[in-house]
Amino acid sequence: MTRIVLGIDPGSRITGYGVVQLHAGKLTYLGSGCIKLARAGGSTDIPLASRLKMIHDGVQELVQQFEPTEFAIEQVFISRNPDSALKLGQARGAAIVAAAIAELPVHEYAARAIKQAVVGTGGAAKEQVQHMVKHILKLPRMPQADAADALAVAICHLNTNLLLTKR
Amino acid sequence: MTRIVLGIDPGSRITGYGVVQLHAGKLTYLGSGCIKLARAGGSTDIPLASRLKMIHDGVQELVQQFEPTEFAIEQVFISRNPDSALKLGQARGAAIVAAAIAELPVHEYAARAIKQAVVGTGGAAKEQVQHMVKHILKLPRMPQADAADALAVAICHLNTNLLLTKR
Repeated sequence: MTRIVLGIDPGSRITGYGVVQLHAGKLTYLGSGCIKLARAGGSTDIPLASRLKMIHDGVQELVQQFEPTEFAIEQVFISRNPDSALKLGQARGAAIVAAAIAELPVHEYAARAIKQAVVGTGGAAKEQVQHMVKHILKLPRMPQADAADALAVAICHLNTNLLLTKR
Repeated sequence: MTRIVLGIDPGSRITGYGVVQLHAGKLTYLGSGCIKLARAGGSTDIPLASRLKMIHDGVQELVQQFEPTEFAIEQVFISRNPDSALKLGQARGAAIVAAAIAELPVHEYAARAIKQAVVGTGGAAKEQVQHMVKHILKLPRMPQADAADALAVAICHLNTNLLLTKR
């Protein structure tokens, strides 16, 4: 059985994604990048509905391209700022709905659990996560930060749910 | 020209909706209610992705049923609680994406602007809003609170954008 996980790291400006495959106990990098929410002209003044639809459509395109079997997303660290929380919530809502429409099981992992799974310690720094993602997936170079976080949540999901592959 | 506005009042548990038509200067009530997010058994323990998809699908069904020309939603009052803001953001994201997929223009109004448009004062109480919604739409009885808020944002949108009908 081959499992393909689409990991998503949503944000109100940039949504990172990472796709990791597990087959015969081996993790393989399939792709990563960002769903950017900027106009070609460089302006970021895009109406809310358009931005949310871009995230939704972006996730939908990734589903068509990679045909993932599962979807993983970082559980949110609740900041002190309700305004940021609202914006992040809207982006998450748009991404999760796209996964749910594609009938993918949606799994959430706390930031600490992701760092624990990838680096081995829940208190790891962002650079350590990037480094270990590069190492685990044998990437030729360091993935960019948002893509690394998305790859990390995908790896975390596959590590956490290894038993699922035994079915 | 007939305009039909779908007003939505999203929440993490209940999402109210209200549909108001404007034709030849006359407002008509078309429908209102709630997209409920509870299982038939009464349990509210539904996974996040399923809840967000219920909101999305609910809005999509309302679009098919009422064929609105516009979509209106209350701008969020940022509470002090980031956790509530995140949950509300997710619900809003799911609802707005459904409207954007249906290619409806999405308009947001601050709570004060809605009260101003419906009651005549930005500081009106919830009961006054319900009362005026009933009066303006000539409803036989008071709409329930969540539906009244959704009808109010639809009325606010039509009042605020009356000029659009002159095109």
